[in-house]
Amino acid sequence: MTRPLITLLTDFGTAEHYVAVMKGVILGICPEATLVDITHEIPPFSVAEGAFTLAQAWQAFPPGTIHVAVVDPAVGSARRALIAQVGGHTFIGPDNGLFSMVLGGGTARVHELVASQYFRQPVSPTFHGRDVFAPIAAQVARGVAVESLGPRVHDWIRLPGADEGPLTAMVVKVDRFGNLITNFGGERRPIEIIVGHHTITLMSEHYAESRPGELFAIPGSCGTLEISINKGNAATVTGARPGDRIQLRFE
Amino acid sequence: MTRPLITLLTDFGTAEHYVAVMKGVILGICPEATLVDITHEIPPFSVAEGAFTLAQAWQAFPPGTIHVAVVDPAVGSARRALIAQVGGHTFIGPDNGLFSMVLGGGTARVHELVASQYFRQPVSPTFHGRDVFAPIAAQVARGVAVESLGPRVHDWIRLPGADEGPLTAMVVKVDRFGNLITNFGGERRPIEIIVGHHTITLMSEHYAESRPGELFAIPGSCGTLEISINKGNAATVTGARPGDRIQLRFE
Amino acid sequence: MTRPLITLLTDFGTAEHYVAVMKGVILGICPEATLVDITHEIPPFSVAEGAFTLAQAWQAFPPGTIHVAVVDPAVGSARRALIAQVGGHTFIGPDNGLFSMVLGGGTARVHELVASQYFRQPVSPTFHGRDVFAPIAAQVARGVAVESLGPRVHDWIRLPGADEGPLTAMVVKVDRFGNLITNFGGERRPIEIIVGHHTITLMSEHYAESRPGELFAIPGSCGTLEISINKGNAATVTGARPGDRIQLRFE
Repeated sequence: MTRPLITLLTDFGTAEHYVAVMKGVILGICPEATLVDITHEIPPFSVAEGAFTLAQAWQAFPPGTIHVAVVDPAVGSARRALIAQVGGHTFIGPDNGLFSMVLGGGTARVHELVASQYFRQPVSPTFHGRDVFAPIAAQVARGVAVESLGPRVHDWIRLPGADEGPLTAMVVKVDRFGNLITNFGGERRPIEIIVGHHTITLMSEHYAESRPGELFAIPGSCGTLEISINKGNAATVTGARPGDRIQLRFE
Repeated sequence: MTRPLITLLTDFGTAEHYVAVMKGVILGICPEATLVDITHEIPPFSVAEGAFTLAQAWQAFPPGTIHVAVVDPAVGSARRALIAQVGGHTFIGPDNGLFSMVLGGGTARVHELVASQYFRQPVSPTFHGRDVFAPIAAQVARGVAVESLGPRVHDWIRLPGADEGPLTAMVVKVDRFGNLITNFGGERRPIEIIVGHHTITLMSEHYAESRPGELFAIPGSCGTLEISINKGNAATVTGARPGDRIQLRFE
Repeated sequence: MTRPLITLLTDFGTAEHYVAVMKGVILGICPEATLVDITHEIPPFSVAEGAFTLAQAWQAFPPGTIHVAVVDPAVGSARRALIAQVGGHTFIGPDNGLFSMVLGGGTARVHELVASQYFRQPVSPTFHGRDVFAPIAAQVARGVAVESLGPRVHDWIRLPGADEGPLTAMVVKVDRFGNLITNFGGERRPIEIIVGHHTITLMSEHYAESRPGELFAIPGSCGTLEISINKGNAATVTGARPGDRIQLRFE
């Protein structure tokens, strides 16, 4: 009896009609769906940032949620479409690494999406969000079995991992406030972090603990280390950008 | 039993409270409505772009959908308010051309909106979105008959058409990716397109077919010709903007 | 039987996953909730602008609405969390003045929020939106009594008021169109307004009444005086910004 919950993550922006069109298609098939935008401001074609944002968001939703993600630079080419299930959640989108931070464990069940009888016809070569992913999400919300949508696959595309040693990590995102979000999620607490020309030695527990203008590291809400500056912009001060390596020193 | 579906399109942006206020008014009258934003980032006062975006979006929604559109530079003046029905959809907003790409055929039924007993009182001279269009949408969602809201009219405002010869078309929009969306929707495929100082001869079927940096034309998801560049920004490269003419040559 | 209505106002932006995560938490606890974004584009840490926007928006929603507001520069410090009720509405967020324009009268009932059994555990020091305010909103939507969530308080933080004489007022906001929204809501109509080096003598009733390029004052949809310019940007022309004083002269 619960209303199906469908999330949307794209690089379409919100100035155009594209996201609304996907919602119209979904609600035409499954009017009782609840739709939630994760974000539509993934930088165009940035599969890695889409993958990271989706990985941060999905576990906050209840089991049963269907996540549609469309960051799809190769739309219209031979790239595959996927539908995957892990932890009670369903993921629908292109096979380009977008789900590789979600499907990490060995428990995911991934299917290639080939059941074109559920697609919106004709399928545009440029807008699979509307013609493939939205109608499939709505059909799954109505009860169509994932197994019926295509053959099981194991060779989905993985993004390069961050499985390096404990002494190095990476900035994966700069948030709106200029905080540097890293992929370091280790238990051990560094005593020193080097970001470009800056060495950070203050390990804080909350934003209000440091002096204005002082860089500090903090356990972020993403479960990874973040680098911040009290009421300032750490990205501007350090010049760091997504993809930049940082160095960690432990006692 | 289906929940009424109401879309919203405005030039209000999302930084202010204006859109939320419209939603609060709607949900106060019709709590079971499902609301979908088409966009609120129409450039301020750009009735033509609002009309184009609405025309692109509405058919993706199921029949019965109510579309509220507010791009309304003359709010508070004597301009009329309209409620129109076509193809099972209902459109509500100012009479300034905003619906002229939707009401094209001969089948539309258009009424002037004068039933002030349904308006939110007092009606602000600057915010008919809240005081006129939102409450009317909610009342129609609850079953109030469109015919009861005012006299039928036939002289609603039309925007200048794009009904020129097959050898010329116009850029109507630049999307987030810099693609030039034109209003050329003809069946025949041009062999050459001239945009400013650029001549385009590659007619592609999908974004991945061309070489990086190469301009090409592609049948866009809007059903009209688009001009793109592989992993680049066609608007920046060509300098083209909405309203610019392009020339087409056919075999 | 009515579905609970929950609004969200933050300074998180919409590019990140933070707002979606709050929605996931809410819908996991209360799947039947209807969620409405007021805005997520409050300038970072701008409690005053958050307070103003919330004060403008809340009364458009029906009684029973729950408003979650998170502009929270001191998150993780000892600042209190609040839950307040006034006019049949419920407000949830940090105790930093964010609700002070809403709780003005003597009728508000305000409680400190300490019922950690309803929090999402572990509570992150940086993301009370997800771990404290979202789950509490969902629990209240499901029927948990506000009185059970913590002790009643009377000393919540108030922002500095705008309770000055009738001859001066303040720009509290510049909207997307460049209109200057003031906090002057008096009944008397000024005959002259001085904004920086500009003296305005045209008091208009609607946007279309003035000549292009002419500054004018107009009773705004916020219930306060606004300063506009016909098809132009009053903020650019005057150089005025939020916080700037304006002078009023009456007959």
